[in-house]
Amino acid sequence: MKAKVYVTLKKSIADPQGFAIKGALNKMGYGKIEDVRIGKLIELDLGDVTKEEADEQLKTMCEKLLANTVIEQYEYEILV
Amino acid sequence: MKAKVYVTLKKSIADPQGFAIKGALNKMGYGKIEDVRIGKLIELDLGDVTKEEADEQLKTMCEKLLANTVIEQYEYEILV
Repeated sequence: MKAKVYVTLKKSIADPQGFAIKGALNKMGYGKIEDVRIGKLIELDLGDVTKEEADEQLKTMCEKLLANTVIEQYEYEILV
Repeated sequence: MKAKVYVTLKKSIADPQGFAIKGALNKMGYGKIEDVRIGKLIELDLGDVTKEEADEQLKTMCEKLLANTVIEQYEYEILV
């Protein structure tokens, strides 16, 4: 069972990395770019588990390890 | 026009960060996990551009700045 987790900074949190990349893209000539935000993509092979187990495990993994829920939010999708 | 870019290491490239997280998850009791790979999620607001312009811009941005195409691969989706 495979899954993808998307961890991003909460909207209220400044993203200096995204800001720096926006500046670089603007210099490359993409002046219309209004915002760039950087997050993490985590691809997991959960092994031999059911969809229900995968759902439960992913929630706990995100809450405990993969996301810092003080400043980050997360989403995940289970790939059948 | 908004878009999401997913940058991941090519399969042939080792991912020490993913390996370390796999170890931590195994210690948390998720022994069945077979693989963890870490990538970048880049969320962009491209401003007032057409879908065709967005597609062209994203390809160039990825090739020139957002992805190191020697060791990374990328995908992107344009969100209408």
